[in-house]
Amino acid sequence: MWSQGRITLSPRARGFHLVTEEVERGVPELDRLAVGIVSVFIRHTSASLTINENASRDVLRDFASWFDAAVSEDAPFWTHTLEGPDDMPAHVKSSLLDCSLTIPVADGRLALGTWQGIYLCEHRDSASGRELVITLCGEER
Amino acid sequence: MWSQGRITLSPRARGFHLVTEEVERGVPELDRLAVGIVSVFIRHTSASLTINENASRDVLRDFASWFDAAVSEDAPFWTHTLEGPDDMPAHVKSSLLDCSLTIPVADGRLALGTWQGIYLCEHRDSASGRELVITLCGEER
Amino acid sequence: MWSQGRITLSPRARGFHLVTEEVERGVPELDRLAVGIVSVFIRHTSASLTINENASRDVLRDFASWFDAAVSEDAPFWTHTLEGPDDMPAHVKSSLLDCSLTIPVADGRLALGTWQGIYLCEHRDSASGRELVITLCGEER
Repeated sequence: MWSQGRITLSPRARGFHLVTEEVERGVPELDRLAVGIVSVFIRHTSASLTINENASRDVLRDFASWFDAAVSEDAPFWTHTLEGPDDMPAHVKSSLLDCSLTIPVADGRLALGTWQGIYLCEHRDSASGRELVITLCGEER
Repeated sequence: MWSQGRITLSPRARGFHLVTEEVERGVPELDRLAVGIVSVFIRHTSASLTINENASRDVLRDFASWFDAAVSEDAPFWTHTLEGPDDMPAHVKSSLLDCSLTIPVADGRLALGTWQGIYLCEHRDSASGRELVITLCGEER
Repeated sequence: MWSQGRITLSPRARGFHLVTEEVERGVPELDRLAVGIVSVFIRHTSASLTINENASRDVLRDFASWFDAAVSEDAPFWTHTLEGPDDMPAHVKSSLLDCSLTIPVADGRLALGTWQGIYLCEHRDSASGRELVITLCGEER
């Protein structure tokens, strides 16, 4: 069984945001699968997806702090600056974190660990909703 | 053909560890496939998976050195510190390295390059065995 | 439908290079799929793949600047130095950026965003052509 859909995540402020439920609502056929895989792909180069701790808001904030420090807007070597100081760091952060997730499906559900959630990583100061392509494949129950 | 299993890697010290054989033993159906894909997913947020050089122990040690320096426990901005100084750096390292691998299968084997091996990246000072979900799909020989 | 092929990218200088068209030419069956997934896997540990901005040469150069600064050849902790000062940084960069891409297919085409392209990230000073395994699966139109 194959299925594919597109959803647009609601716009978020710069930073890291839990979007597990928003993604799951984009995959209504999930519960038909016994075993499978979901591919979640973000169609942008200045926002990304990752999986991490789903319980503490502290963690989301600390992610932003680390990435802002590690990929500084003030680095002397940036040359692609026409779209603002947050643009080139956003591209680098996107590739460090990746634009796609591949998540196993078991018994009609994402087989995430207890503490795992899906993060939208919004790297621009101001962005509109981000588009995801969600592709599901597997064996029906 | 679809198949899925779970294995628990034996507990490892903080650092980087080659686990290719442990993972392959978790996929007994591999040799039935002519062409396919294996998804390996770690159900944790303070350990991760990557593919890198499989021959030198030096490389494993240097990975640990770089990640410990780049994601310092002493950074002044951490606020999520309740679970110990190694916890928040572990989360960031996990997302830099990723919780999943997608590996092609050819002629019943993982189509890894000669020098490629699977690393378990253990970011906590002390952790129990890490659980993997391994999902296999493809065309039988 | 499953299909798999191998291509060798032409050798590139150290740095970041757009290879979207070279990869697409390696997947002639793409246009037969209504819905699917392409896995692109590089069989090396000192070069990697990522998806990022496809329009400005500035961005490619700034990627190289950031990665060269963040994973310095001069770091005091490297012990794996036998293969040259660019070797160990190449391994770390490869794992930060990843050796595989999973890209959704829609209506016979890669479902990339308007600004997304595939980068070959060549981390060695001197390298020969890099081998990719491209695996395609999905539902035919």
